Amino acid sequence: MRPPFPKDKVRPIAWERGTLRVLDQRELPRRVAYLRCRTAAEVARAVRDMALRGAPLIGCAAAFGMALAARPLRRRPRSSWERSLAEAGRRLLASRPTAVNLRHGVDRMRRRARELVTGGASAERLCDGLDAEAQAISREDLEANRVMADLGAALLPRGSTVMTYCNAGALATAGLGTAVGVIRRAYQLGRVKRAYACETRPYLQGMRLTLWELMQDGIPSTLVTDNMAAHLMATETIDAVIVGSDRIAANADVANKIGTYGLAILARHHRVPFYVVAPSTTVDLRVPDGRAIPIEERSSREVTTVAGRELAPRGARARHPAFDVTPHALVTAIITEKGVVRPADGARLRASLAPKPGRRSKGTPL
Amino acid sequence: MRPPFPKDKVRPIAWERGTLRVLDQRELPRRVAYLRCRTAAEVARAVRDMALRGAPLIGCAAAFGMALAARPLRRRPRSSWERSLAEAGRRLLASRPTAVNLRHGVDRMRRRARELVTGGASAERLCDGLDAEAQAISREDLEANRVMADLGAALLPRGSTVMTYCNAGALATAGLGTAVGVIRRAYQLGRVKRAYACETRPYLQGMRLTLWELMQDGIPSTLVTDNMAAHLMATETIDAVIVGSDRIAANADVANKIGTYGLAILARHHRVPFYVVAPSTTVDLRVPDGRAIPIEERSSREVTTVAGRELAPRGARARHPAFDVTPHALVTAIITEKGVVRPADGARLRASLAPKPGRRSKGTPL
Repeated sequence: MRPPFPKDKVRPIAWERGTLRVLDQRELPRRVAYLRCRTAAEVARAVRDMALRGAPLIGCAAAFGMALAARPLRRRPRSSWERSLAEAGRRLLASRPTAVNLRHGVDRMRRRARELVTGGASAERLCDGLDAEAQAISREDLEANRVMADLGAALLPRGSTVMTYCNAGALATAGLGTAVGVIRRAYQLGRVKRAYACETRPYLQGMRLTLWELMQDGIPSTLVTDNMAAHLMATETIDAVIVGSDRIAANADVANKIGTYGLAILARHHRVPFYVVAPSTTVDLRVPDGRAIPIEERSSREVTTVAGRELAPRGARARHPAFDVTPHALVTAIITEKGVVRPADGARLRASLAPKPGRRSKGTPL
Repeated sequence: MRPPFPKDKVRPIAWERGTLRVLDQRELPRRVAYLRCRTAAEVARAVRDMALRGAPLIGCAAAFGMALAARPLRRRPRSSWERSLAEAGRRLLASRPTAVNLRHGVDRMRRRARELVTGGASAERLCDGLDAEAQAISREDLEANRVMADLGAALLPRGSTVMTYCNAGALATAGLGTAVGVIRRAYQLGRVKRAYACETRPYLQGMRLTLWELMQDGIPSTLVTDNMAAHLMATETIDAVIVGSDRIAANADVANKIGTYGLAILARHHRVPFYVVAPSTTVDLRVPDGRAIPIEERSSREVTTVAGRELAPRGARARHPAFDVTPHALVTAIITEKGVVRPADGARLRASLAPKPGRRSKGTPL
């Protein structure tokens, strides 16, 4: 019999009667502190400033942001509702450009709002309906992660040593995690015996978040700097690299945290399988390939300043692309809740997402 | 006519009447502070604690350490001299295991001491002789760097954009630098127009030292985190990667700062030439290949603590191999002061180091 899924020790967001409580991930692992967002603008700011991050989580948070935007409409004329929600959606969409889950969350909430408004719902009913929709998005994200955790774990040989990058854990999703969800599940099932977490400069999500999550589950974990990955692959047995994604193009190219592309090249060089784990909400069939995915360029100060201290020479110029694109040819398999796409190519990806004949569809993800 | 070589803005070590003044590189670029070493043990400590670093510089400093060890011999019986110098040599050799220049410096000083003692030198003459020998080692290192700077610059197309790793600059040598020496010279000659410096976790030598050196010369320079290298190679034109080395094996495998190996794989994947610049004192014909080079494992605290702040979760376990090995097949050329070894293989490397018939040899380096 399969064990129950691992329990999350913290929840990165919580919906509390019209307030979104956000765990401030910038303070982890030293301090568990929360922000309270009462408007869509506050949610957008929390996303932009990276108090919360992780593509699926950003999508969930944006949905709650839309639910928050509906609340003041109770005191506003019905004719202004659509405009207000559109404005909130634009603000949320502008917060970060790369993760497509953000757009997915906003679009789904706007569709639901339109249904409710067109159906003659009162402001009260609109709010309740959007609350319920946002909660459904989170619920479905968690459910997708559980399915992916089992699909991914099944790919790993017993007693594997795996490597992961950035944080694709419970802190990046509505729960359990994507890549880290696979590792957590595989550890329960005896398929993972050790995990290496790459620290992931400049934000150190691997050091601060992933290692913390793995340690909470008691998974034997080792931190490495990003530049140690090749040396480990050459001198130890790494059975798989497992990462998340911020957007997957129609041809199966994968955008993820800066450094993922390099790691995929190193994995290929050492013949280590490279798995991408992401819910179908991360797939964007509107972009034909990786070159069309917008790559966010963030402030150079986030590179030159570590732990609040400016370490580079005064006047230093730094690049800070926050993401990169891994061509699908370097990806061994993409795991979504719809199945394992292997080898990872556009045709197989699209086929795996299409509603299966003979099964009742829950609606296409895009 | 060729311009004179670029002038160093700082000197990482200075010999001042029996004291070795050491620029404390851990404080750079914020503070220019010096340590004074009066004994071989103090030099060994400065090397071990990384107040100074860089394979050629460690070799020069160790030579001055041996010169310092000779000073108290003036008040000791002649019969104890050899033992005292052997003890100082052992202490210096134990400070860091990977850079072979350290052993080269110590061995050469011990040979010179034996010559002087066997020749009946007084304690005063022994001290003077060892002073002169240590200064000769530094002078020859600087001269080698000048030769390599011209050899390396000639390999670069006009207007190149180059990438370097860690710090193989004036701060890592007796002056000018190896890899950075090539970049400085090539910039003077119009062959380099921009340099990317990888920050080089965990010590951030690229961010703190290399960028600082490049900026002092007015070379347009951009800092990147180590994990951005692949993205830059894919999305911009990088004409060459240029690095130093801590030890080169007889088969031309190259040990250098952790992360170099991964960078070499990325360069190969993107067809970017990968050059290693190191004086012949870095070549160790006694080790047959890279697997035989000892790789120093340093404290995990140096990974989990950044700028004095512990950032990883409490109790985190981290790896910290300080170096890695790049197989010679990934190296486009090795540049020593004896010539350009291209392609980089053992036979060509050994041939380039052998004394040239018809020229007066200055002695083999090993």
